[in-house]
Amino acid sequence: MTSWLPTLKTATPEEGYDLAVKLSRVAVKLTQPDAEVRDRLRPVYAEDSDALIAASQVVATHFATVAAANDFWRDKL
Amino acid sequence: MTSWLPTLKTATPEEGYDLAVKLSRVAVKLTQPDAEVRDRLRPVYAEDSDALIAASQVVATHFATVAAANDFWRDKL
Amino acid sequence: MTSWLPTLKTATPEEGYDLAVKLSRVAVKLTQPDAEVRDRLRPVYAEDSDALIAASQVVATHFATVAAANDFWRDKL
Amino acid sequence: MTSWLPTLKTATPEEGYDLAVKLSRVAVKLTQPDAEVRDRLRPVYAEDSDALIAASQVVATHFATVAAANDFWRDKL
Amino acid sequence: MTSWLPTLKTATPEEGYDLAVKLSRVAVKLTQPDAEVRDRLRPVYAEDSDALIAASQVVATHFATVAAANDFWRDKL
Amino acid sequence: MTSWLPTLKTATPEEGYDLAVKLSRVAVKLTQPDAEVRDRLRPVYAEDSDALIAASQVVATHFATVAAANDFWRDKL
Repeated sequence: MTSWLPTLKTATPEEGYDLAVKLSRVAVKLTQPDAEVRDRLRPVYAEDSDALIAASQVVATHFATVAAANDFWRDKL
Repeated sequence: MTSWLPTLKTATPEEGYDLAVKLSRVAVKLTQPDAEVRDRLRPVYAEDSDALIAASQVVATHFATVAAANDFWRDKL
Repeated sequence: MTSWLPTLKTATPEEGYDLAVKLSRVAVKLTQPDAEVRDRLRPVYAEDSDALIAASQVVATHFATVAAANDFWRDKL
Repeated sequence: MTSWLPTLKTATPEEGYDLAVKLSRVAVKLTQPDAEVRDRLRPVYAEDSDALIAASQVVATHFATVAAANDFWRDKL
Repeated sequence: MTSWLPTLKTATPEEGYDLAVKLSRVAVKLTQPDAEVRDRLRPVYAEDSDALIAASQVVATHFATVAAANDFWRDKL
Repeated sequence: MTSWLPTLKTATPEEGYDLAVKLSRVAVKLTQPDAEVRDRLRPVYAEDSDALIAASQVVATHFATVAAANDFWRDKL
């Protein structure tokens, strides 16, 4: 079986950011496994600025981890 | 007696993520030890996007710790 | 007089987690020193999922500190 | 195609701060891709002090990452 | 003039925790310099579990900094 | 043109704390550039304990960064 998270290593900072977004969403799926419910919630919170900022906060926390795991992509410079 | 947390070491990032989820939930159990109450609360907050995002934030914080403990699983690469 | 926090060192990750819980609660006691008030608040927030998740977030932040202080209990492996 | 995030390296702390702001906003765009909706939400949350503080928190988290990536711009001193 | 924060160094973890509490409160004073207003707010939020947990979160964040500054008081062990 | 953030280096921990406060406020200004609106919001949130604690949290996050940038002012001891 393929892992959804085989590594924290990414080729670029942008891909690292995308991975941070993915890491944020997986926890939501684990708490609310029903895709139908999540689809129902999405349009509501996507119009709620508090929820948008809170979601951005989770991405920021994961991005810190992914960036550290990649040594901030320093070898790309 | 077996410890619920014998180590922060995991074989893969995905298992590290699962451990972060576990670490998040144990604190809830310690504050609300009554399983019946937790079972009653779960369906409510699982449909509350604010709660889902907040839960994801806790996972993100624990995942940072677990990832650091595993040196970001760098030796797997 | 004995200190309530003589060290951040713990024998195991599980004891480190318990210390993180303790560190979370002491701040509440310092802000609300009246045990009677805290006893009155506890049953209310223990049934409030937002509060339970927020409390878990505080534990996560302290656990990161305790884990780092113990070098993630790496020498136990 | 040009990446929106080619590097975390910036010439100065101020540019690093600007990058942190950018990192905060991209997550919002990914959750709410509709620019029209975002334009509608902006004036509301820009007058909501809770939202302003929460947005500042996200910037702070990203700034920590960017600052570490730049070794705190120590070589500029 | 004496500084309210001459150093982050403390003799013990417990004193480090007290410093973290102090660091949390100073920011409140800087935003609301009027002691009379703060005195009026205190009894209200001291009975609000959400506020108590949020205040504990701020202490946790500062404690992480103070603990790192003291190398986790490792030389005391 | 002078930068508002030429460096993260400060002479003392207290100056580092002041810088953290400044870093917190700049993000608010960038989201709400209208000084008149900010002046209108200030007295409201300065009497709202939740907002005061949230603002203190942002300062705590920035202070962690500034403290690390200054190697916790260890050479001052």
